[in-house]
Amino acid sequence: MIYFNCDYNEGAHPEVLGRLCETNMEQTSGYGADIYCERARGVIRGLCGNDRLGVHFLVGGTQVNLTVIAAALRPHQGVLAAESGHINVHETGAIEACGHKVLTVPSENGKISARQVEEVYRIHVEDESMEHTVQPKMVYISNPTELGTIYSKAELEELSAVCKKNGLYLFMDGARLGYGLAAKENDLDLKIIAELCDVFYIGGTKAGALFGEAVVISNPALQEDFRYIIKQKGGMLAKGRLLGIQFLALLENELYFELGKRANVMADIIRKACRESGYPFLIENTTNQIFTIMPDDKLDSLREKYTFSYEKRIDESHSAVRFCTSWATEEVNAQKLAEDISND
Amino acid sequence: MIYFNCDYNEGAHPEVLGRLCETNMEQTSGYGADIYCERARGVIRGLCGNDRLGVHFLVGGTQVNLTVIAAALRPHQGVLAAESGHINVHETGAIEACGHKVLTVPSENGKISARQVEEVYRIHVEDESMEHTVQPKMVYISNPTELGTIYSKAELEELSAVCKKNGLYLFMDGARLGYGLAAKENDLDLKIIAELCDVFYIGGTKAGALFGEAVVISNPALQEDFRYIIKQKGGMLAKGRLLGIQFLALLENELYFELGKRANVMADIIRKACRESGYPFLIENTTNQIFTIMPDDKLDSLREKYTFSYEKRIDESHSAVRFCTSWATEEVNAQKLAEDISND
Amino acid sequence: MIYFNCDYNEGAHPEVLGRLCETNMEQTSGYGADIYCERARGVIRGLCGNDRLGVHFLVGGTQVNLTVIAAALRPHQGVLAAESGHINVHETGAIEACGHKVLTVPSENGKISARQVEEVYRIHVEDESMEHTVQPKMVYISNPTELGTIYSKAELEELSAVCKKNGLYLFMDGARLGYGLAAKENDLDLKIIAELCDVFYIGGTKAGALFGEAVVISNPALQEDFRYIIKQKGGMLAKGRLLGIQFLALLENELYFELGKRANVMADIIRKACRESGYPFLIENTTNQIFTIMPDDKLDSLREKYTFSYEKRIDESHSAVRFCTSWATEEVNAQKLAEDISND
Amino acid sequence: MIYFNCDYNEGAHPEVLGRLCETNMEQTSGYGADIYCERARGVIRGLCGNDRLGVHFLVGGTQVNLTVIAAALRPHQGVLAAESGHINVHETGAIEACGHKVLTVPSENGKISARQVEEVYRIHVEDESMEHTVQPKMVYISNPTELGTIYSKAELEELSAVCKKNGLYLFMDGARLGYGLAAKENDLDLKIIAELCDVFYIGGTKAGALFGEAVVISNPALQEDFRYIIKQKGGMLAKGRLLGIQFLALLENELYFELGKRANVMADIIRKACRESGYPFLIENTTNQIFTIMPDDKLDSLREKYTFSYEKRIDESHSAVRFCTSWATEEVNAQKLAEDISND
Repeated sequence: MIYFNCDYNEGAHPEVLGRLCETNMEQTSGYGADIYCERARGVIRGLCGNDRLGVHFLVGGTQVNLTVIAAALRPHQGVLAAESGHINVHETGAIEACGHKVLTVPSENGKISARQVEEVYRIHVEDESMEHTVQPKMVYISNPTELGTIYSKAELEELSAVCKKNGLYLFMDGARLGYGLAAKENDLDLKIIAELCDVFYIGGTKAGALFGEAVVISNPALQEDFRYIIKQKGGMLAKGRLLGIQFLALLENELYFELGKRANVMADIIRKACRESGYPFLIENTTNQIFTIMPDDKLDSLREKYTFSYEKRIDESHSAVRFCTSWATEEVNAQKLAEDISND
Repeated sequence: MIYFNCDYNEGAHPEVLGRLCETNMEQTSGYGADIYCERARGVIRGLCGNDRLGVHFLVGGTQVNLTVIAAALRPHQGVLAAESGHINVHETGAIEACGHKVLTVPSENGKISARQVEEVYRIHVEDESMEHTVQPKMVYISNPTELGTIYSKAELEELSAVCKKNGLYLFMDGARLGYGLAAKENDLDLKIIAELCDVFYIGGTKAGALFGEAVVISNPALQEDFRYIIKQKGGMLAKGRLLGIQFLALLENELYFELGKRANVMADIIRKACRESGYPFLIENTTNQIFTIMPDDKLDSLREKYTFSYEKRIDESHSAVRFCTSWATEEVNAQKLAEDISND
Repeated sequence: MIYFNCDYNEGAHPEVLGRLCETNMEQTSGYGADIYCERARGVIRGLCGNDRLGVHFLVGGTQVNLTVIAAALRPHQGVLAAESGHINVHETGAIEACGHKVLTVPSENGKISARQVEEVYRIHVEDESMEHTVQPKMVYISNPTELGTIYSKAELEELSAVCKKNGLYLFMDGARLGYGLAAKENDLDLKIIAELCDVFYIGGTKAGALFGEAVVISNPALQEDFRYIIKQKGGMLAKGRLLGIQFLALLENELYFELGKRANVMADIIRKACRESGYPFLIENTTNQIFTIMPDDKLDSLREKYTFSYEKRIDESHSAVRFCTSWATEEVNAQKLAEDISND
Repeated sequence: MIYFNCDYNEGAHPEVLGRLCETNMEQTSGYGADIYCERARGVIRGLCGNDRLGVHFLVGGTQVNLTVIAAALRPHQGVLAAESGHINVHETGAIEACGHKVLTVPSENGKISARQVEEVYRIHVEDESMEHTVQPKMVYISNPTELGTIYSKAELEELSAVCKKNGLYLFMDGARLGYGLAAKENDLDLKIIAELCDVFYIGGTKAGALFGEAVVISNPALQEDFRYIIKQKGGMLAKGRLLGIQFLALLENELYFELGKRANVMADIIRKACRESGYPFLIENTTNQIFTIMPDDKLDSLREKYTFSYEKRIDESHSAVRFCTSWATEEVNAQKLAEDISND
């Protein structure tokens, strides 16, 4: 069986694992107060072009999302997300469990527009009984989105502007950021993101690390006491250096971006096969997730050799599915899948 | 200025207030452990035809909703509601503040159908990664709904059946129950409701009391330790008898139902004027709320004499508004408003 | 049976109830946006000598405590209280249900000293791993305390100073404030309290109202969006005027303070009987609660005519109990109890 | 600098790390649904002698504590712990952030007795107004405790009996369980623990793993929907196999127990030096933590070569400190420290 169901089927990139092995018996302080975390924070600040950024390393994405949001909001405040947003549908109510409502807006492509944010904000402040409704205070976006689409620089600038104007925080979930920044049409980089967002994270789990997400906080208001919240929510890793070491391996020499690029190339192989075989896309994108629509019997036959994830029924005989490549996808396997997609 | 903006503009029905005055200097135990609460519980059990019901008196509706839901759900469980449901839009995230997601379904008329519940449940249990999503465990309905519509006996039976089949609790918010039970086409009564719902409440605040809601719990699983939850959420009134006395006044002699009927008659006067003047209804109903669409200049002129609540913009020159009658609406005022609606 | 078990056995002082009756059929806006609440806010601001105070009316004490604390603290912050503090022992974990730890200090007399606060703060900030522990951010005191003792002006000034120095909020629970301000040795008044505390409340439920507590917020940081928190926690009364009317009746003409004084005089009658009969006090105080230690057989005999509350076992044959007077205690009843205490 | 400040200064035991390297490029399903987790669950069920146990792997201790407690308790229920318990003092209010009060009992040696549990329970149920107080529902113990002491079989049996009798859950935090089970006087084993506790965990982070804790649930009531709670609280590791692989390495061949034993032997070397040098112990124990009292100038001199943790001031010139050994402590380092302790 060859796995294309997600981008976390393997362990870590060998370079990352190698660093963990080399440093294994060293003694360091715990909880992120070690030399590796400190160096990794420096590398990230450098890449973002801002040495006053708060940088914190956590283990996983849901943990980051709930920690950032709990740190940012007062009890009556909510976070705006696309209906398909990860925090809205795939975190078992983690945000609500911290007391906050996820306010949703519809989205065809997984993205939120500045206009939507403006509208939600306007409706709230014009409501005579506004205190009977949740106060929007943060906008949560993913880049790439759950549907593999990415924000352009222009879109992010507009979002950032509307957030700043209305006193909202802008938070970018970057669980797959490496794949987004490596996309063909991408015009964002870490510097721009750090400037436009109040907080974002660089995803490691899905992009070469064993696990780990690097949270980058630009807005000083969100930096205050952040480590308390990490600890309270169970996200403070005792051997914090494991995170610093991995992000050093990924980021100090461009490995992270190369892995992203490679996965996107692998995805293009599969994407091309779909397109040439006439299978339509549920959504067009250029990152490591391919959302395509196929006949059910075709899918049954692919299932004999490959795993992939089922998205939804399209009609009586067709379904949408997702094929996912990653830093670890072997070209031979992508080719095999492409051939099997193309074969009748 | 004559108020038609809501059904809690006045104090209490004189009969209710009179009882509070009569008993004022009596000494009783606190927290609902007094003779009046005990008698009121007896009256309610009698009306519901079940002497094993748990009956608790709380001060207001949001308080009831959050207390019942917090008592019923485990952390990963959510409550299903119509998008327009009070807990979803008008309680400042009170349910989320207790840790629970409100799972919404679209609804034109404010009601939820058994089919919708079945669908949400099925999608959840068929999801391979169901533990990544909120588990639906309770269905919240209002009767009348936020739009003044009511459930028929058949609809409620279907809802109850689908809930029972799938292990979901059915919770009816009865903030305006008196107006619903007095509606012309209504075929429900307290006995049926107590049988079909796991928990519901009889609203006093909007229907003749100074304040107060009577929570009726049929399902023994929801009765356990309910008083602890009331206390924790700040809902245990020190002089609990104030609630018992008011519900005794309302319920021991049919006053509650008469008041509901009267308010609906008052609403019909206004409704008739709208209909005859050609103002369409946002939604048709027969209870104490009239949702009608009028030209903005007509509304401006009505605003000089009356308060009412703005619902939403329909087009450039028309808006939907709500006129609300209550147990306290004087016929002369309903007539005046009807005339002013009818006048060009 | 004559009740001395608490100070909320009766309804409201006739003057208060009278005002509710007079205004009963008036139409007003809901949720505290009415003329009576506005006037009551003005009276309170006048008594406190500060017209920029935030004033909000809630129904009960636990509701106030959880609302104020939820509004003030971030998730990792806790509130300091005496071990005997109401929020620590008698609110079913209401504060923890909002996510916050109650940090306790021992107290013989129910009071917290400035020295204790300083010590807790110092230990926290000197801890190398402070983010692994709850950050103290608020100090909760009651005046009178659970044991009926009161703070002197000097004590409150010291507390306020240590709080200000260390960035802590000072919150005074005034559920029985009327009895405290009327105590013989009291040297506080509302002006001083409003100046020294960041937030406090004037208790109505136990001091002449049917129900109701007036929250007074001096610190602008705690005023922001407070109404949202009230609503979210279920504390926003639909007919908010009921609270404004009651506080007007109590406060615009000194009634509140007279009632407090009278209750203390009634308590002195009972206190004197205990002292002369040689029954020791668990704690000495001059407000409306008498904590005395009596032989169990004496208590059994008193129980035939009076209710009072059991505090704790002292030794094999003696127990501590509490007798409580109130604004409603009739002198003839206080005399009867005093005689029965004195009789062998 | 040689680290004795904690037992998580190094990475993982080489055997554990080796397994991670060997399996690194294998493709498996995520979230613990892989063959390694399944095998590790089997090994643990075998060691515990019960194949119906629920076994879940999480990353860290605070995460386990908050997840287990959130899964077990209803909102009004609290968890009993020693005042020194980790959940009470070193988790930044993680339990309270899930809504639950930690009810504390004093403890000299870090342990809770059956008698104390019985007393807390009795006081609660005998309280007439019990619903005004938090309901005790779970007992949290650590073995070894924060002070390195361990429970005897007899003590655990008594605790278990009193919990069962009163409907309380017994939860053992086993963050350092390996060191406890390897202690000289220990008479517990995994079988007994699984039988006597409703839930416990086998700590990996401090005992040979890179990270990881294996939660073992005996009580079926606590097993229900546990994975939902893990996910919601941010504790579900994407590459769950990393946990399964590590526990396989530790447990399938006794490595875990050997590592524990070795650390205790290393601790004995240091302990002996303290004893022979006349330095008293804050608390006597036989596990991997040594709590000793030394003159401050002695400590200053040791600080030049070693890290250790400061516990508290004993008098003007003496302090209590903790030296901690681990699976990774080299004998030569333990000897060096012992010599430096012995030298004047």
